Amino acid sequence: MNGYTQDRVAYLKRLRRIEGQIRGIAKMVENDEYCIDVLTQVSAATKALEAVALGLLDEHLRHCVVQAVAEGGQVAEQKVAEASAAIARLVKS
Amino acid sequence: MNGYTQDRVAYLKRLRRIEGQIRGIAKMVENDEYCIDVLTQVSAATKALEAVALGLLDEHLRHCVVQAVAEGGQVAEQKVAEASAAIARLVKS
Amino acid sequence: MNGYTQDRVAYLKRLRRIEGQIRGIAKMVENDEYCIDVLTQVSAATKALEAVALGLLDEHLRHCVVQAVAEGGQVAEQKVAEASAAIARLVKS
Amino acid sequence: MNGYTQDRVAYLKRLRRIEGQIRGIAKMVENDEYCIDVLTQVSAATKALEAVALGLLDEHLRHCVVQAVAEGGQVAEQKVAEASAAIARLVKS
Repeated sequence: MNGYTQDRVAYLKRLRRIEGQIRGIAKMVENDEYCIDVLTQVSAATKALEAVALGLLDEHLRHCVVQAVAEGGQVAEQKVAEASAAIARLVKS
Repeated sequence: MNGYTQDRVAYLKRLRRIEGQIRGIAKMVENDEYCIDVLTQVSAATKALEAVALGLLDEHLRHCVVQAVAEGGQVAEQKVAEASAAIARLVKS
Repeated sequence: MNGYTQDRVAYLKRLRRIEGQIRGIAKMVENDEYCIDVLTQVSAATKALEAVALGLLDEHLRHCVVQAVAEGGQVAEQKVAEASAAIARLVKS
Repeated sequence: MNGYTQDRVAYLKRLRRIEGQIRGIAKMVENDEYCIDVLTQVSAATKALEAVALGLLDEHLRHCVVQAVAEGGQVAEQKVAEASAAIARLVKS
């Protein structure tokens, strides 16, 4: 079981909505809509993706990392290092 | 005509690829794949979207803004203010 | 003359304030204050720096780029390419 | 003791360097240096601050959060929620 498993349906819904946003942006480009309007939609989709990432990360810390730490040992250390690396990728993306 | 019009086909291709990335992420969530692996894909999709935004913005400056400025007057000022606002949204997203 | 020249005093004031924020963060680290409180101040300083960057960029577009474009030729193209590169660095930082 | 306590000297050194970068940027503004050059330095300082934040966060997870989780109970939950909120502020700044 993963951190997000309980909220899987909600995450799927959010991802479908983002997929729709991207498809909408492609439609705008196809229709040669105004650059700034396209950019506004790209920023909105980026923000939505970032929100999904922050949600997944929170669940991951609250479930997977906490459980690994509770069990202790090397796996716990690995999980924390892995979470830190994911946070760094997120901050830089 | 918009800044990106000449490269429309390339932008559509990139957007289709990002749409596929989002669909892939939804698939991973459906299959209950490991949080960190999902997050890695979300970071990759965010980066790809950001690259599209930077491309669109560059084209917008090089074509729409330059043209408006060449024509001068209030429209030029508006275009620059509008571009600045889009840049701010991008930096904050 | 640069884009920000007219607002130089205001920018200097903002930069002094950010310098003070950084010094305050160092003080917190020296006093071994709580990590999360230090992080909150680092986020605030980062936001303030980003706001300065967006301001400088806006002035640059409104003055330097507009003037170069009005003069036309290769310099105009260079200025736009240079601005795009600065925007990309900003978005990625 | 905080997560970063052992590396305090190194963090102080990095913060002093960032403080110097900000002072250097103010000097550039004072000398009316070229906007894009100022922006390049602002991006560099922002990146350096972000790296400090990621370092502090990693230490915080590895020490404070892990310890709280090992002790268990409500404090553990609080620490994780607090870390998530700090990550969100960082991603958005």
